[in-house]
Amino acid sequence: MSAVPTDHGVASLGEFTFECGQSVPDLEVAYETHGEFDGDNVVLVCHALTGSQNVARSPAPERDEETRGAGQAGQARAWWDDIVGPGKAIDTTEYYVVCANVPGSCYGTTGPTSERPADLDLPDEPDHDRWGTSFPPVQVEDWARAQRRLLDHLGVGRLRAVVGGSVGGMNALEWAKRYPDDVDRVVAIATAGRLDAQCLALDAVARRAIRADSNWNGGDYYGEDRPSPDEGLALARQIGHIMYLSKASMERKFGRRSAGRDSLTREEGDLGLPPEPTAAFFPYREVESYLDYQAEGFSQRFDANSYLYLTRAMDEYDLAAGHGTDADALGAFDGEALLLSFTADWHFTVEQSSSLADAFRAGDAPVAHHVIDSDHGHDAFLVEPEHVGPPLRDFLAEGVEGRAVSDDSGGDRDESVRPESDHAPVHASLFKG
Amino acid sequence: MSAVPTDHGVASLGEFTFECGQSVPDLEVAYETHGEFDGDNVVLVCHALTGSQNVARSPAPERDEETRGAGQAGQARAWWDDIVGPGKAIDTTEYYVVCANVPGSCYGTTGPTSERPADLDLPDEPDHDRWGTSFPPVQVEDWARAQRRLLDHLGVGRLRAVVGGSVGGMNALEWAKRYPDDVDRVVAIATAGRLDAQCLALDAVARRAIRADSNWNGGDYYGEDRPSPDEGLALARQIGHIMYLSKASMERKFGRRSAGRDSLTREEGDLGLPPEPTAAFFPYREVESYLDYQAEGFSQRFDANSYLYLTRAMDEYDLAAGHGTDADALGAFDGEALLLSFTADWHFTVEQSSSLADAFRAGDAPVAHHVIDSDHGHDAFLVEPEHVGPPLRDFLAEGVEGRAVSDDSGGDRDESVRPESDHAPVHASLFKG
Repeated sequence: MSAVPTDHGVASLGEFTFECGQSVPDLEVAYETHGEFDGDNVVLVCHALTGSQNVARSPAPERDEETRGAGQAGQARAWWDDIVGPGKAIDTTEYYVVCANVPGSCYGTTGPTSERPADLDLPDEPDHDRWGTSFPPVQVEDWARAQRRLLDHLGVGRLRAVVGGSVGGMNALEWAKRYPDDVDRVVAIATAGRLDAQCLALDAVARRAIRADSNWNGGDYYGEDRPSPDEGLALARQIGHIMYLSKASMERKFGRRSAGRDSLTREEGDLGLPPEPTAAFFPYREVESYLDYQAEGFSQRFDANSYLYLTRAMDEYDLAAGHGTDADALGAFDGEALLLSFTADWHFTVEQSSSLADAFRAGDAPVAHHVIDSDHGHDAFLVEPEHVGPPLRDFLAEGVEGRAVSDDSGGDRDESVRPESDHAPVHASLFKG
Repeated sequence: MSAVPTDHGVASLGEFTFECGQSVPDLEVAYETHGEFDGDNVVLVCHALTGSQNVARSPAPERDEETRGAGQAGQARAWWDDIVGPGKAIDTTEYYVVCANVPGSCYGTTGPTSERPADLDLPDEPDHDRWGTSFPPVQVEDWARAQRRLLDHLGVGRLRAVVGGSVGGMNALEWAKRYPDDVDRVVAIATAGRLDAQCLALDAVARRAIRADSNWNGGDYYGEDRPSPDEGLALARQIGHIMYLSKASMERKFGRRSAGRDSLTREEGDLGLPPEPTAAFFPYREVESYLDYQAEGFSQRFDANSYLYLTRAMDEYDLAAGHGTDADALGAFDGEALLLSFTADWHFTVEQSSSLADAFRAGDAPVAHHVIDSDHGHDAFLVEPEHVGPPLRDFLAEGVEGRAVSDDSGGDRDESVRPESDHAPVHASLFKG
């Protein structure tokens, strides 16, 4: 497979007024492109909550500076390399793939960690030069609008497809709602028109954990000698991480086993918290060791304020907003839609995707709801490329008539597509690092 | 219905050596009794994680001093009053009901909040007189042993039944394992032989939240002017609370609604944490307001160290320990067993109760696994007395042949027992306060 051209950059898009009414004087958007633009082959990929523009490896790895420089790994770096690349499901020898870091995040696009304008008049002037929590509230709608501005800047009009998973799927749905004439095909994976009460609750507890960390300090923790709220962010991440795994996959992977001698020690794992004096009597279990290790890596690569902003955006998103129903919100879209969902995903359920399929169908958009039988949880969209890839590839090429695309609406799912999930390997997931 | 005699007290049981090998010079156990002892009518009720000995209201409410004095409410006070009382499923005109606060808890039985012996030689002498985290590690096995000692003290030999839900169900199972000849009937509700990886993970994150509260201070926070780790305990409770509710019941009760004007304000709700500056832009949702309110009440009534100790006991419990399998552990029990489980309980699942039923059956004990179709979650055992009561009542009287006892082993559940759960009221649950 020959190398495809890739590019990366940070586009200065000028003044940007958020949906909340507040604005920034110059919105910078960090992005990558993979493949060659032929005028009609653009696939916009929307990343998930803590993802980045670095959707896939580039043939010149030294290019991945924004994401590498920030010290991140896992989901931040080449997070969908199993799906995006030459010859892969989103084939970069065929499509021009664009992926941009969303406003409010911390991988190069303007957000709480960005330098704030010197002439900004704040009631309580912080002693550092970052936006921090003075940054305007961000919503999923702003992400779509920033992407539209970026694509204009890149000379792209119409899109072949918008693809996204998790809150990136909400971002993709927002394209169908806001720019129905700009996109032919929408792929929304493991997503929903809005979070339910359980997910809202878990996100609220996660934010509370960040706010409870005294290092958070109301959001002012930037500057050379200031400690960052790593512990609060680690706790928030652990809550999120458990949401994204299924009960069955956790039991299979960890069970009740004690962490082995070679594993991380408790002291290394949890950022130096004081242990319980009685802890030595009880095993340090693999599942705890794993969550501690992953959370520590995450605290290194992500910004706590960005986590607050992005979960707020996810919680607030409601596809029906401004229209009354999802069907009305999607009424102007006459492209095709693919919804992918996973049976063991308890964060974004199969039922929620079914409801989205109904909403597309109400507007006469050709739609397929492809259910993947998996005992991975929400992270199946990242760790089961062998099941996500084929329907995604065929849908991009042929729409809902694509060979590997099945429509499981109405409950008559094709059991023949069931993967051997009992023995599925646990791939590097979005939670690595 | 005439009043039945009730009693309450704190029994001094003398030196007690925990399973870990450490001991306390005098184990005090706070308990209540309801009804009259006739030599053969004792029902021991085992409370859940944060419950107390105050299983039901007494006719002389001023008696409920231990639990009232501690300022607690909700699960701590008269927590199973729907089930235990004159004419109720566990009929105190017929049975002599005993309920005791478990060692490690904070409602009068010896635990981390108790005064420690003056002559205790600790490597780092704390500047207060409580046990704190010097208290020996506690296990479910110790709870059963302490209950046995208490019953001896009360002059009770053989028990008609042991009944418990959640970790109280583990406690009841431990009776069948440890004292198989002492008990005729065991009722284990919404429980399991051991926690799975997902529950272990959530408990570990909850403990981490307590440890991360700087007021926790390694467990030394007792004394007049010391702040207690209320925020860490509140976070831990919120995680637990979400575990005990079902996705469907949360959606039905709260949805995405904003908290009304009359509700708690955010500032009142979360113990004075600094808010996110952008929070004013987003709704304070009912689900968050509810969790904040409940957690604040809980922080007032419960002790953070006790929460660490009791979750450790729950996590560590393994029915098979020392025997290899659950069936072997229960092999000597030749009484009858009732397992009650709830379809929407994702903390202790129907499958886990099925597995327990198989284990009892392997030892030829008459067993019924009665599945209650409910969209409440784990807390269904407290909030659906109308479905828990009948099988419990009939099992206590007639064993597995009791009229309202069904055995749903083998998957052929009787759908006719399905409650109108879509419209079920949300009762005061264990999470009130």
